[in-house]
Formats: sequence, C-alpha cells, structure tokens
Amino acid sequence: MAYETIDWTVDADGVATLTLSRPDALNAFDLTMARELEQVFLADARDDDVRAVVVTGSGRAFCAGMDLSADGNVFGLDESLRPTPEEFRAAFDQAPYNEGVRDTGGKVTLAIHALPKPVIAAINGPAVGIGATMTLAMDLRLASTKARIGFVFGRLGIVPEACSSWFLPRIVGIQQALEWVYSADILTAEQAHAGRLVRSLHEPDDLVPAALELARSFVKDRSTVALGLAKQLLYRNSAAAEPLEAHLSDSLAMYYASIADGKEGVAAFLEKRTPEFRGRASEVPRIFP
Amino acid sequence: MAYETIDWTVDADGVATLTLSRPDALNAFDLTMARELEQVFLADARDDDVRAVVVTGSGRAFCAGMDLSADGNVFGLDESLRPTPEEFRAAFDQAPYNEGVRDTGGKVTLAIHALPKPVIAAINGPAVGIGATMTLAMDLRLASTKARIGFVFGRLGIVPEACSSWFLPRIVGIQQALEWVYSADILTAEQAHAGRLVRSLHEPDDLVPAALELARSFVKDRSTVALGLAKQLLYRNSAAAEPLEAHLSDSLAMYYASIADGKEGVAAFLEKRTPEFRGRASEVPRIFP
Amino acid sequence: MAYETIDWTVDADGVATLTLSRPDALNAFDLTMARELEQVFLADARDDDVRAVVVTGSGRAFCAGMDLSADGNVFGLDESLRPTPEEFRAAFDQAPYNEGVRDTGGKVTLAIHALPKPVIAAINGPAVGIGATMTLAMDLRLASTKARIGFVFGRLGIVPEACSSWFLPRIVGIQQALEWVYSADILTAEQAHAGRLVRSLHEPDDLVPAALELARSFVKDRSTVALGLAKQLLYRNSAAAEPLEAHLSDSLAMYYASIADGKEGVAAFLEKRTPEFRGRASEVPRIFP
Repeated sequence: MAYETIDWTVDADGVATLTLSRPDALNAFDLTMARELEQVFLADARDDDVRAVVVTGSGRAFCAGMDLSADGNVFGLDESLRPTPEEFRAAFDQAPYNEGVRDTGGKVTLAIHALPKPVIAAINGPAVGIGATMTLAMDLRLASTKARIGFVFGRLGIVPEACSSWFLPRIVGIQQALEWVYSADILTAEQAHAGRLVRSLHEPDDLVPAALELARSFVKDRSTVALGLAKQLLYRNSAAAEPLEAHLSDSLAMYYASIADGKEGVAAFLEKRTPEFRGRASEVPRIFP
Repeated sequence: MAYETIDWTVDADGVATLTLSRPDALNAFDLTMARELEQVFLADARDDDVRAVVVTGSGRAFCAGMDLSADGNVFGLDESLRPTPEEFRAAFDQAPYNEGVRDTGGKVTLAIHALPKPVIAAINGPAVGIGATMTLAMDLRLASTKARIGFVFGRLGIVPEACSSWFLPRIVGIQQALEWVYSADILTAEQAHAGRLVRSLHEPDDLVPAALELARSFVKDRSTVALGLAKQLLYRNSAAAEPLEAHLSDSLAMYYASIADGKEGVAAFLEKRTPEFRGRASEVPRIFP
Repeated sequence: MAYETIDWTVDADGVATLTLSRPDALNAFDLTMARELEQVFLADARDDDVRAVVVTGSGRAFCAGMDLSADGNVFGLDESLRPTPEEFRAAFDQAPYNEGVRDTGGKVTLAIHALPKPVIAAINGPAVGIGATMTLAMDLRLASTKARIGFVFGRLGIVPEACSSWFLPRIVGIQQALEWVYSADILTAEQAHAGRLVRSLHEPDDLVPAALELARSFVKDRSTVALGLAKQLLYRNSAAAEPLEAHLSDSLAMYYASIADGKEGVAAFLEKRTPEFRGRASEVPRIFP
C-alpha cells in the first residue's frame, strides 16, 4: 500500500520504521496523514512480520502539529450538531456525530494504542500539538537533543486532544501534566527529559539507531503473544479499580501465554538454548471482556 | 462578601490571591474557615473576572492544621450514627449523615477541585494536617524554603482526609504516598521537593511573586473556556478506565472549545496577532455525563 | 504453625520478620511457598500482636523466581479449560477454573495487599520473576546494593503476573513499567532505585536493620485502626474515578478512626503526652462497599 504522507519499512528483524514524511511542511498533520496513520497501525503494523514499530520524522522536524494552512474548517467539525455528552456517547459510532464531532487525533492515537506490539517514538525535532500528543500513545519516547515538545493548545483556544489527558498524567504525574498544559510552552529536550516525558536523550545522528536497537532488544527471541498480552495488561490494569481486576486478567493472560509459548520458554531456559517461539501476534487472545 | 478567616483580592489580570488569615493561630483551620473556603471557591472564584487563584498564608505559617483548641467535639461528628458504607453512600446528600459523618476538609477540597481555573498553592511556612491536604487539590504547589509539610494524621489516631488519598498518589506515586502517611513526619521543603510534591522552591520573599507570575503566564491571552475544559479533562481522564473514555470527552471538549475560541485562536495565529478570546469561564460546557 | 519454606518471627514491638527460607534453592518460589505465604498473610500476620511486616530472603538471594526445576506442569494449569474472559470471571470462585487457570503468584500478592498493616520488602539479593513481582504488593521496597531485580517474564514467553500490572505503573509510571517488562532485563540496585521502584539503597549488613527501624517508626505509639484504614484509602482511592469517591470513603474512615482512637490522639496531643491507643487492627471497619 502506497502512502502520501508517511514512509513505512520493515527490516529483517521485524522492526518497522514509520517516518512522517512531509518534510517541506515540517511533517504537519493533515487529514490525509491522519487517515494514513490510522490505516498503517490498523493494517500494516498488524502483520505478523512486524514485531515493533519506531516512529520518527523526515527532515528537521518530528511533526509541527495540525496543518493550519488548510483552507476553511481546520478542525473538520460540524458546528450545527452540538450534542450533549449523553447524546455524543450514545451516538458515538454513528454518523454524523462520528465525523462531525469526533477528534481526528484521537482516531490515530487509539489505533496506535491498540497495536499489541512495542511502539517507540524517536522525536528528532519539533513535536508540537498533535505532533506531541501522538507520541503519548507510543510506549516509550526517545528524543534528540534538538527535540522541542509543546502542548500548545491553550495558545490557540483549544484543548489537549488525542486522548492525551489519559496518557500524559500516567507518564509524568498530574502536577507536571497540568503545568505543561496550562503553560502551553515549547519544552526543550532537557526539560522534557527532566519531567520524565522522554526516556532518554541522544545526539541527533544517534537517535534513530538507538530507537531501533531498543526495539530489537524488546523483540529478539521473544514471544510476540506474550509481548502483546503484557502491553494490554500494563495499560489496562494501570487504570483498574483493584488488584483483583489485574488478577483476573493476568491469570488468563498467563494461562494463554503458557500454552502458546511458555512451555517452550521454560524448556529452552532449562536446556540453556535459545527459545523458538511459535505464537503469532495476530493470535493474541482477548483477555479483557 | 466579608470573610473572617481569609482575605480575597483580585488583581487587574484576573489573578486572585486568597490568604488564610488567622496569623495569631498560625492560620489554623476551624469550622468558620472551612465554610468560608467552600464559599469563596463556589462563589467568588467563579466570577468571570477571576481567571486563576493563588493560595497562601498570612504571617509565618501556611496553615497549622485543624484548630484542636476548639472546645468539645473537634471533628464535629455525631457518634450515634455509625452508618455502614452502603448506608452512608445512599444517604450522603441528606442530613444527618451529611453533617454527622461527612469530613469537613473534603467539602473544601471538592470545592477547590471543581473550580475550572488554575489554582496554585504558595506554601509559605508550616502546612500540617488539613493545611497540607488542602494543597493537594490545588493544581501546583510552590513552596518557600521555610515550608514544612506534614501528613501527621497517624500521630493523632486519625486518617488522611480531604480526598487526599485520591490526590496524593497521583502527585507523588503510591510508594511515596504510603511512606509519608505511615511516617506522619513533618517534611522539610527540600524533602517535599525531592519527592515531587512541590513543583519548585523559592526564597521566602520570592514565593508569592513567583506564584502570581506563574498564574499570569497561564491566563494571559488565553481562553478561559479552553483552560477550564483542559483542567477537567486532565483530572477526569487520569482516572478513566481506557483511552476511549478520554477520546469521548476530549472530542466533545475540542468541539466546544473550537466553536467558542478555537477559530479566533487559529485566525490570530495565522495573522500573527494576539487572540481576543470571547469565551467566558462561566459558560464552560458540561463534558462529563 | 510450622512452615517449611518460610520463617516467621514477631518482636516485642509487633514488627514481624518473614524470611523466605529455601537458601539452597535461592529461595525459589514453589507451590508450597505459595501456600505458606498466602497462609501467613491471611492468618498469622492478622494477629493483633503483629503491627507491621518486613519480608526478606535467607542467604544471598531474596527469591530467584518460580522454581522451574519442578517436574511436569510448572505453571500448574489445566490446558483443557480454555475459558473466555467472561467465563473465567463468572466462574472465578469455583473449581476447576480457580485452580486450573488462576495465577498462583496473584493469590499471594492479593493476600499481602489485603493486610491492613505496613509491609516492607528488604530485598537482599536477586529478586527475579515472582521474586520481583511479589515485592510490588508490599508498600515500600528497600534494597541492598547487591539486589538485582528482574521482570524477566518476556524471556520465558510468559507475562508479568501476581497483579504486577496493577502495581508497577502506580509505583514507577507507565513508561518505565513498559520498558522494564519489554526489556525483561535484570536491573541493578542502582537502576531500580533511579527508576523509583526501590525507596532506598543500603549496605548489605544494614538492610534488614533499616527495614525494621522504618517499620517500628510507622507503628510505635500509633493507632493500628488508623494505619489500616489509611492503607486501604491510599490504594483504593489511587484508582477511584473521582475525588468524590475518596470523600465518601475518607469521611467514613475518619468517622470510625475518630471514635476508635482519634479522641485519645487529640487529647494526648493537647496534654503533651504519649497517646494510648486502644483500637485493634482486627476491628478495622469495612469502608469500601
């Protein structure tokens, strides 16, 4: 499948590189990029040959945010709808609320989040607005020393979107999340690192190689079934009401992982050899009702 | 409205300063202060002319905690009631459970939390018991190097109140929260800062000016509608079960913010001018059912 | 009660020391140890003479993980069952799902978590797999500089268990939790400390004394009722949807703590004497429906 705004390659280790690729526009996010990102995470990245994904930007930016140069209705909203919260929830899956009210960035981050494989952001330069919030749905954020990250929504009279209010407090704590959203400032790479948004800083030329190496270390000789289950468990149970909820889901996950690949893993460990896992990511069972 | 135990002023930028003002009693919290704090956050602070609130203490303390010198029943509880959890929840809104069982500090922190505007604690000295827990419902905590903070409930045979068990783990993580509550020690400003309870430390004379400057930076040339929605989103979705919940609420919030102020924000950005937001905080729409 | 795989002693201050005691097997976790740990936390540790628990390992390890040298079905699972999530939840309490699907480590961590008293891990050496995840259900983790901690499940084709997906993100944040689970590496004591999994590092000989001293500082002259209620509040409300939920539970907790021990605590404070709390941990009332 050919894309206009992104590049997608998969190497021999199963590590995909997704490059936002509108370098002349600082990889600004438009409706085409939104559709293509949703598509790549819901289809291409689900192929069993893909075991992890690294996301970066072409040229000097990661993603400069929503492309505000687009003509007309930049948010793509239908102002005549004005649903109440109850009406929107009830009608969420149906047009016209879906297209007329639903946040575009959120469609993308929900697709990223739903992928049962590690996703790593390699933030190579400015990541602003949706360029910042899309990285929150990725599991880890590595950044170049030249990265600049801004939750700038407040300056435009709008709110943080793309499910960022779910992810950001879980990553940096509520106090830091509130300050960054209130200030709407552009953070330096060092500030983002000190605030624990970014896992590690790298020289610009070292960034993507470091992200690829990290991705490889996560998937080499690993069970893709177990990895996909672990990702689901950590996100879902980080928000569960009680440890008992985690016990119900991790019991089931352990049961299925053991059948799929755990016996081979234990056998290989005892025999001091490399395991040969047969489970397929596309067969990760459903654990949450 | 005149208050006995607090001072309330609003400057030309819309930044209010709320000063706990019983300096001879180290601003100890009594039932009058509780009523006045609830009132000021539910009424005065909701005025559209108020865009942010800074809370500090008069004299050398922030708030020395519940005024234990009061005669008789210091907790104001009716010991004859003894409801079960189910009975209390069912009868929560009605007397006598409301007055006879309901925690006084929680009424205050719920009122602080419900204000859709930034609230900043400027902790100028000792903040103990309810003096400490009331700051948790404020969005950011700045502290003087002379601040001392104590979750001392355990020494008195009582529990952390004022919804602090909701806020504290979100701010500092569960391990640190448990240690501070178990130890019931008075923390130095440096300890509170190292444990990430406090956002920044300041020389005593610089504290309130720094808090006011931070508050101004949050609200100058900003949409009060967008700010109020962002605060709701971050707190509510930090506790939501799934990113999909955030997607439902941030879609609606983005929709309403865009109509109220987002179009002006984008236009001003493209025209490289200061935006003139017209939305009013009192008109922040309901986003959560 | 005599145990095969653990030692259990209680000192005059009410601080119990639980020692994992299969030193020749690096205290590897087997089904006997699982049963004994569940038993000790559900019975012995609930005695009113026990006010806090310190958990450590005998010899050079804390716990080397599941004993994979056991014959046959190391996970103890019945592969013929294959329930759906709905079936498992519906039948959770009944055999055969209970024994055939339910995670063994989770039974232990739920028992640890349910104890309404401080529990401190003193991680003296390698803590791997269930040896690592069991410490997450303890309230604080102190470690020797010789500790090594590994969430190594991914290397064996299995998932993090024992409710660890509930606890770990609350302790270290979601980004760090994902990295450690994906990497499945053995962390040094310094890495675990830098990532905020471990509260403090100690020279090997100083570890258990430091843990015992900390435990004593939590319980000396304290109300065991208030301590047990505070533990419940912090864990449960860290996961509650809204501050209002915390207000309902902390109001009730404050009400009961005040009646049990709060009046004595306030009286002692005003009279500048040591309080004599009469409340009993076994009488901690139910606060959550």
